Amino acid sequence: MGSTWGNKFKVSIFGESHGNGIGAVIDGLPAGIDIDLDRVQNELNRRAARGNPLATPRKEGDQIEVLSGVFNGKTTGAPLAGLIRNENTRSGDYAKTKDLMRPGHADYAASVRYGGFQDYRGGGHFSGRLTAPLVFAGAIAKEIIRVIRPELGIGSRIVSIGNVKDTEVCDWKVYKTLSKGFVNPAFPLYHAKLEDAMKQEIIAAMADEDSVGGLVEGFITGLEPGIGNPFFESIESRLSALLFSIPAVKGVTFGAGFEVASLRGSQTNDAMRFNDGRIEAVTNYNGGINGGISNGMPIVFQVVFKPTPSIGKEQQTINLAERKEAALSIQGRHDPCIVVRAFPVVEAATAICLADFLI
Amino acid sequence: MGSTWGNKFKVSIFGESHGNGIGAVIDGLPAGIDIDLDRVQNELNRRAARGNPLATPRKEGDQIEVLSGVFNGKTTGAPLAGLIRNENTRSGDYAKTKDLMRPGHADYAASVRYGGFQDYRGGGHFSGRLTAPLVFAGAIAKEIIRVIRPELGIGSRIVSIGNVKDTEVCDWKVYKTLSKGFVNPAFPLYHAKLEDAMKQEIIAAMADEDSVGGLVEGFITGLEPGIGNPFFESIESRLSALLFSIPAVKGVTFGAGFEVASLRGSQTNDAMRFNDGRIEAVTNYNGGINGGISNGMPIVFQVVFKPTPSIGKEQQTINLAERKEAALSIQGRHDPCIVVRAFPVVEAATAICLADFLI
Amino acid sequence: MGSTWGNKFKVSIFGESHGNGIGAVIDGLPAGIDIDLDRVQNELNRRAARGNPLATPRKEGDQIEVLSGVFNGKTTGAPLAGLIRNENTRSGDYAKTKDLMRPGHADYAASVRYGGFQDYRGGGHFSGRLTAPLVFAGAIAKEIIRVIRPELGIGSRIVSIGNVKDTEVCDWKVYKTLSKGFVNPAFPLYHAKLEDAMKQEIIAAMADEDSVGGLVEGFITGLEPGIGNPFFESIESRLSALLFSIPAVKGVTFGAGFEVASLRGSQTNDAMRFNDGRIEAVTNYNGGINGGISNGMPIVFQVVFKPTPSIGKEQQTINLAERKEAALSIQGRHDPCIVVRAFPVVEAATAICLADFLI
Amino acid sequence: MGSTWGNKFKVSIFGESHGNGIGAVIDGLPAGIDIDLDRVQNELNRRAARGNPLATPRKEGDQIEVLSGVFNGKTTGAPLAGLIRNENTRSGDYAKTKDLMRPGHADYAASVRYGGFQDYRGGGHFSGRLTAPLVFAGAIAKEIIRVIRPELGIGSRIVSIGNVKDTEVCDWKVYKTLSKGFVNPAFPLYHAKLEDAMKQEIIAAMADEDSVGGLVEGFITGLEPGIGNPFFESIESRLSALLFSIPAVKGVTFGAGFEVASLRGSQTNDAMRFNDGRIEAVTNYNGGINGGISNGMPIVFQVVFKPTPSIGKEQQTINLAERKEAALSIQGRHDPCIVVRAFPVVEAATAICLADFLI
Repeated sequence: MGSTWGNKFKVSIFGESHGNGIGAVIDGLPAGIDIDLDRVQNELNRRAARGNPLATPRKEGDQIEVLSGVFNGKTTGAPLAGLIRNENTRSGDYAKTKDLMRPGHADYAASVRYGGFQDYRGGGHFSGRLTAPLVFAGAIAKEIIRVIRPELGIGSRIVSIGNVKDTEVCDWKVYKTLSKGFVNPAFPLYHAKLEDAMKQEIIAAMADEDSVGGLVEGFITGLEPGIGNPFFESIESRLSALLFSIPAVKGVTFGAGFEVASLRGSQTNDAMRFNDGRIEAVTNYNGGINGGISNGMPIVFQVVFKPTPSIGKEQQTINLAERKEAALSIQGRHDPCIVVRAFPVVEAATAICLADFLI
Repeated sequence: MGSTWGNKFKVSIFGESHGNGIGAVIDGLPAGIDIDLDRVQNELNRRAARGNPLATPRKEGDQIEVLSGVFNGKTTGAPLAGLIRNENTRSGDYAKTKDLMRPGHADYAASVRYGGFQDYRGGGHFSGRLTAPLVFAGAIAKEIIRVIRPELGIGSRIVSIGNVKDTEVCDWKVYKTLSKGFVNPAFPLYHAKLEDAMKQEIIAAMADEDSVGGLVEGFITGLEPGIGNPFFESIESRLSALLFSIPAVKGVTFGAGFEVASLRGSQTNDAMRFNDGRIEAVTNYNGGINGGISNGMPIVFQVVFKPTPSIGKEQQTINLAERKEAALSIQGRHDPCIVVRAFPVVEAATAICLADFLI
Repeated sequence: MGSTWGNKFKVSIFGESHGNGIGAVIDGLPAGIDIDLDRVQNELNRRAARGNPLATPRKEGDQIEVLSGVFNGKTTGAPLAGLIRNENTRSGDYAKTKDLMRPGHADYAASVRYGGFQDYRGGGHFSGRLTAPLVFAGAIAKEIIRVIRPELGIGSRIVSIGNVKDTEVCDWKVYKTLSKGFVNPAFPLYHAKLEDAMKQEIIAAMADEDSVGGLVEGFITGLEPGIGNPFFESIESRLSALLFSIPAVKGVTFGAGFEVASLRGSQTNDAMRFNDGRIEAVTNYNGGINGGISNGMPIVFQVVFKPTPSIGKEQQTINLAERKEAALSIQGRHDPCIVVRAFPVVEAATAICLADFLI
Repeated sequence: MGSTWGNKFKVSIFGESHGNGIGAVIDGLPAGIDIDLDRVQNELNRRAARGNPLATPRKEGDQIEVLSGVFNGKTTGAPLAGLIRNENTRSGDYAKTKDLMRPGHADYAASVRYGGFQDYRGGGHFSGRLTAPLVFAGAIAKEIIRVIRPELGIGSRIVSIGNVKDTEVCDWKVYKTLSKGFVNPAFPLYHAKLEDAMKQEIIAAMADEDSVGGLVEGFITGLEPGIGNPFFESIESRLSALLFSIPAVKGVTFGAGFEVASLRGSQTNDAMRFNDGRIEAVTNYNGGINGGISNGMPIVFQVVFKPTPSIGKEQQTINLAERKEAALSIQGRHDPCIVVRAFPVVEAATAICLADFLI
C-alpha cells in the first residue's frame, strides 16, 4: 500500500514503468471547474523534458487520456481518472540484470517487501516514471486552485546542482515576482546566468558515466493566513509526506531550514508589523508557517534530490538469486541529473497538498 | 483537525496547556502486550526534564493515568487512553498579553484559523506541552515494539546546539552501540566531552534573554529489510509527517541529507556486499531506506529545531485587537533551548511510526 | 481497532465497563460554537434512563467532564475530550463467570479476537455502557448542528417492542411535527396510548427472567437536498456504519425498507412535484435519499434491536477454559429491553453522521 | 467524494456510464497471488447477464483490461488497476430528457449536489453500470481470498422477487452446501422450482412497463471466529457500508434480521455447545457475528433491492430547468428487476469487505 493520499483531494496512483499504463484517479473534486487539457498536458510535457539533451533519451509520449470526471470541459464531481500508456519500452533491457540489485535503487528493499514478485522492469512501480501520474494529479490540482484561489502562485526553482549553487534563501519579497516566471522556464534560476555552470556539472557527470544531485526550492505566494492544522495535519507534515514520496528526495526543510539550528530566537522569530494596514512579518525564517498553519507570508521550502542511482560507472553489488557479489554497469537510457525534471514534480506535490487543504 | 494519526497504531491527542488535562487515545493495539507503567512514566519524565537547570522552571508532574485498554498489566486490545492533569498553571500570566502576537509562535496563524476562539493561555493546543501526549503514545509504542521486535533499537542524540557541533554523520556501524545508551543519557552526545560547550551556548542565550536552536539525530537499528511502502506511505513520508508535527521542527533529512545535493551517484549509491552471508551496504548515504522501504541498514535521520520562540528580549510585534504595532518582552517560564527536551519526543515519534508499520 | 470514525467530525471512543473511565475525543470541530454542557449532560441522562423502573438498576452517574476543546463556553477548534468515570461497579460479579461464554454476547468472539486478554468485566469495551461516549459525541454534534443548521430536526421513536407495534411507516409530512417532541419524551411513540402495552411486553419478559427486542425509527427533518455522496460515502453507507456500531443492532433500513422488495417501481419511485414553488416528492419510499444524497425529503430509517442478551433464564453455553458445556443463568443488573434506552443512542449516531457531512 | 474505500484492500472506483471508461484501482494487495483473469472476467459476465432475456438489452462487452499490478500472472504488490471501455452507448437518448428528473433516480439529488455539472447521460457516475468496477474489485478480492483463505465460501441467493418468496431464513447448516453452487447459478434459489414464478413476476412487471423489487441473501461460510472489530469497524458496519453503496439497496439485516424485534432473548441468544470438539452455536439468529466479530458460524445477511427506477410507465415529475411539472415515460434499455443482476454485486461487496479484514 502507499499509493493513495488525501483527505479531500484524494489521489490514487497506479502503474509500473513497463506495464500497460500508468495513471491516477482523483476523488473529491468540486464540480463545474474548467479543466484545460492543454495546460494539463503541458505539465506532463514539462516533466517529460522532451528535447532536453540533458534528460534521458527515452522518448515518452506521456499523452494523457481522461477517462472520467470531465464532461463538457468541466469537472463533474465524480472521480477524475487519467491514463498514460507506456510506450517505447525496451523491457528486454532489464530481464538479464533482474537479479542484480542496483545500488541506490529500491531493487533490494522491494524484493524483500514483495517477495520478488514486484515488476522489476525499469524499477516497476518504483520507477521515476511514476512521477507522471503525480504531475497529472498536480496539474488537475492547479486547475482547481486557479479557479478557487486565483491569487495563488505556485513555483519552483533550481537552487543547486552539484557544486554550483544559486542564492540559497531569497528575500521573501522576491517570491511574488518569481511566481510569475523565470528567464528560462525549463531551467528556473534566481540568477539565470548560472545555467551554463550547472549544466556543466551535469555534463561532467555524464562524461564520467556518473550522475549528480541537487537542490530544488518550492514556494507558494498569495496564500491567506489560517490554512493548515496543528500536529499531524500541519502544512509541513502534509507537504513533506508528499515531497518525500517523490523518488530520490532525501530531505525537506521549511523557511531557513538547517540554518536555524545555529541561530538565536531573536533572529528567527520573524518580528511582525503592519504594512499599509496589512499584517506581515519582517523576515520569513519560518517559511510562512507557524504551528503548522500559514501566516500569510510566502510558503518556502527546499527539497534535496540525491544523484540518479542509475549510472554507467561500474558499481559493486550483489546478485540476489545467486547470493554472491557482482559488478554492475547500468546501461540504458537514464537521467544524469534528476533535478532538471524534478522541479515540476515538486510543484505538482505542492499543488496536490494545497488542493487538499483548500477544497 | 490534525490531532489524529495512524493506519494501525491510531493515536488521537488532545488537550490545551492550561485546560483540565491533556492526553492521548491509542486504538489498534494488539492484545496481551505487557505494559510497564514505570517505563511509560519514565519516558514522560525524560521529556519533563525535571531537575534540569537548563529547562523551564515550570514544575509539571506529568503523572499519567491510564483510563482504559490495560487490564492486569496487559493491553486488552481496546483503545488505550491516558490522561495527564495540568498542574502548576499560572493562567493569569497570559490574559494580559493575549492580543500580542508572539513572533515565531502560532498565535497569529491560530487566531486567524480559529477566529480568535482558540485557548490562548500558554499557546493552548499549540503548546510544546502537547508533546507530553506524543511521548506517552511513543512510550506505549515502545512497549509494543519491545515485545514484537525485541531486536529493534530506537535512539537519538544531540548533534548540535547553536554553534557547537558534534560529528554530523556517524559511521553506520556505530549506531548499534549508540542504541545501547550514552555516557549521559540526559544529554546524549557522540562525543560526550562537548556537553559543557553546548550547555554554554544555552547559558549564553539565557544571559541575553534569548534562545538557541539545534539539531537532533534519530536512529533505528535492527530493522529488517522490507518494511515500508512506496510513495505516500514511505518510511520517509510517514516519519517526516510525525516529526514535523513536533513544534519547532523546521527540517527533516534522511541519511546524508543535504550533503547528497553536491555528490555523485557513484558516491551516494551505497554499494552492496555480503558480510558473513548477510547482505549489507558498504555505506549508508540513503539512511537505511530505498524506495520508501527499509534496506536492513540503520535508519538514520536528522531533525532541526528552531530556537524557542519565547524570549525575554524585546521584540517587535502587533496587537491584533488594537491593530497596531507593539513591543513585547515575554516573561514567564520558558526553555532557552528546546533541544534538551526534544530528543525524547523525536524518539516517541519514531516509535509511533514504527509501531504503525509493524503491528 | 474500530473505535475511531469520521472524515471531518472525527470521534475516538475509549473505555471499558469496569475500568477507570470511558469517554471520547472529537477532532475537527469548528471553533467558536457554544457548547451548553447542561444540554450535553441531559443527553447522557436520557441514555442513563435514571429513574426508569424498566431499565437496569445499576445507578450510573454518567457525569461528563470536558477535558479540553472548550474555553469560555465555546469550542476552541482543538480536540474536545470528555471523560466519564465508572462508578458503582461490582467487578466481583464477573470474575466467577469469566470462562462462561454468555450466549448472544461478544464473549466468545472477543476471546478469540483478543486471545483472552480483553477486559471481561461487564463485557469490557463491548459493554452497552460504551454507548455513553457515543451519546456524548452525539450531544456535541447536536450542539454544532444547532448552530450551523438551526432548521434541522433530529428525532427518534419507538416503533415496536416485542409484539406491540406502532404505525410502521408514517406519512412523511408527520416528521416535522414529531421532531418537535413526543407526548412522553422518555417513551416516544406515534400513538402515545401504546405505551402501556409496550411496557407490559417488557414486564412480561422480566417476569420470565427474559428480555425482548424492538424497533426504533430515526429521522432527520429540514435537511437540504444535495448532502451526501455516491457509493461508499452515501448517507446510507455512513449512517448504517454508525448505527451498526451500536451494540444489539441487527438491521437498518431506509424509507419503506423491506416493504419495497415486493412493490413495483411505479409505486416506490416517489413522483415529484412543485408545492408553492418548492420541490418535493409526493411519497417518501426512498426515505429522503437517492444515489446516497439527500433529496430534501425527511430522512427516515429504522433500526432493529435484538433482545438484551443478558437474561436470568438458564441458558446452555460453554466454559471456554474447561472446554465443556455448562448451564448459565445471568444474575446482576440488566436491561430487559434495550430499546427504552437505545433511541437516544440512535439519535446520537445520526447527529454524528450529520455533523461529519455538514461541518 | 465517496468512491474510495478500505483500510487494507483500498479500492477506488471511477467512471461514468457514457464516458470513456469505467474501472477501479486497488491498493494494498499482497504480492505473489495468482490472478486468473478468466475467472475475473467471468464475474463481470455474471453481472452483465449476457443473454439473459430478463435483463437490459444494452449489450455491454464489459471486457476488463488490467493496466497494472499483475506481472507474469501474479500480483506485484503495486496498485492493480482495471479498465472497462464503455461501448454501445446511445448518449443521444439522454440529452433531450436531461432536465426531467427521473423519480427514484439520483437525478435531482445529484443536480443539487454537483450544481448541474454531473454527467447526466445514463445517470453518469450514479449509473448501475458502476457496479461493474465493484464486481471487478470483488473478483480480485475473491482471487486473494482463494489463496489466503481457501476454506472460505462466499455466495448469494435470490430470496424474493415481487411477491414470490423463497425460504427467508435457512437453517445455518445449509449454507456450506449452498456455497458450493446452485441448481441454476444464473438464478440461485434455495428452492429451484420457484424460478418460473419469480420470472413471471418480472415478466408481469415488464408487461406493465413497470419494474419490481426483491431480496438477496449473501453468506460467508468457513470464516474462523475472531475476525472483525467492535464499533465502527464491526463486520456489520463495514459490510453494510459497502452493501448500501450498491445502487437500489434500501435495507441490510444480519442473521434473523427484523424478526428479532419481536422475539425474546432466550430465543435469539444462540446457545452454545461443543460438537465433536468444535465450538458451535445451536442456532444462528445473530448471523455469525457478536460484538462486530465473527463467532465461527456462517455470516448471513439480507439485502433489499428496490424496483429499478427506470420504467416506461408514465410518471409525474419536474423539469428542473423550466421549474414546472412534467410527465415522463422512460424509454431505452432498462432492467425490469435489478435483482437478477445484483446478486453477483452483493458477493463482490462481500469479498471486498472480507479481503479488507483478512489481508
